[in-house]
Amino acid sequence: MKFYDGAAPNPRRVRIFLAEKGVEVPTERLDIPKNEARSPAFLKKNSLGAVPVLELDDGTIITESVAICRYFEELYPDPPLFGADAVERAKVEMWNRRIEIEIMTNIGAVALHTFDFFKDRVMQVPAYAEAQRETSMKKLAWLDGELADGRPYLTGDRFSVADITGMTASMIAGFVGIEIPEELSNLRRWDDRLRSRPSWDA
Amino acid sequence: MKFYDGAAPNPRRVRIFLAEKGVEVPTERLDIPKNEARSPAFLKKNSLGAVPVLELDDGTIITESVAICRYFEELYPDPPLFGADAVERAKVEMWNRRIEIEIMTNIGAVALHTFDFFKDRVMQVPAYAEAQRETSMKKLAWLDGELADGRPYLTGDRFSVADITGMTASMIAGFVGIEIPEELSNLRRWDDRLRSRPSWDA
Repeated sequence: MKFYDGAAPNPRRVRIFLAEKGVEVPTERLDIPKNEARSPAFLKKNSLGAVPVLELDDGTIITESVAICRYFEELYPDPPLFGADAVERAKVEMWNRRIEIEIMTNIGAVALHTFDFFKDRVMQVPAYAEAQRETSMKKLAWLDGELADGRPYLTGDRFSVADITGMTASMIAGFVGIEIPEELSNLRRWDDRLRSRPSWDA
Repeated sequence: MKFYDGAAPNPRRVRIFLAEKGVEVPTERLDIPKNEARSPAFLKKNSLGAVPVLELDDGTIITESVAICRYFEELYPDPPLFGADAVERAKVEMWNRRIEIEIMTNIGAVALHTFDFFKDRVMQVPAYAEAQRETSMKKLAWLDGELADGRPYLTGDRFSVADITGMTASMIAGFVGIEIPEELSNLRRWDDRLRSRPSWDA
């Protein structure tokens, strides 16, 4: 197999996932600013012109970071990062989606709608970026409330792919200058805990 | 268990899923326009004030339509709607996310940013709605190209939860007056195939 990687938040989700599993995979790193993910040859692998992409030995293509992580979870079940039983797996899915939809996407929209890099990739609406910056702060306060019971990770005692999505959101927040306010102490504790993991640097 | 339902696209995803499985679950239908999902009692179940919610007999709460579907997949494995082996499961995840991110979310943004119903729920940016209407048409053309090989369903011969997400996107498109252009014949064939399923009316 071959993992097509690049310097961007979504491939980083897979890199963190693999680091947490202790697995190394043959990797080709694309130069994203040089549009290598949008070359005619690469568009044949992923018509959306993006990494990550996993190519299996029989030519099967898997795109989308969470789909790739889910495939690796089946190849390398330990430690379980998508949950260890039906209820835990449902909770991981629930929290991965909550963090992605409520937190990461809102924060990401600030970058998508203001950075020059995305000018020819999305129809930028700067007023939307401003609205999403404000919305993001409300959602951070919501998440702080959710973590008020002091549990170490989103689904309880076990680190999961939902926390990895949180690590990615935290990185994107840094890009757009969104900081966790001092008073959101539950959220800060969780964020500090994630930053202390060796996989943070993946 | 109890399934909290309501007249909205995301709970409909779960209703279609259950219809495809041939399963009935004790259900309480909330009146969404009357804000029953945002009552203090219901906010204790889902702090995001939304359906669907699945409450298990021990009080465990699962929110997010896909998380609830995934839980039902484990309880009722046949027919498999999340894939039958590791590669197929990865492809279902990939396509479910592609349809959700590239199609459903873009079309949904047109409703979110123009409908009175969402006025106090999101910071509406009408210019963003217009941009997303245009983006949606480009994404429909992209999806038409992806379906040009004539396969019946997104991941191949087997209907999956990714197609259910497509059914939901199709319904939202109707709400905002987005129609599949005549020339996107691959997409039209797929959409017609989904509309002919008995679960369409779930």
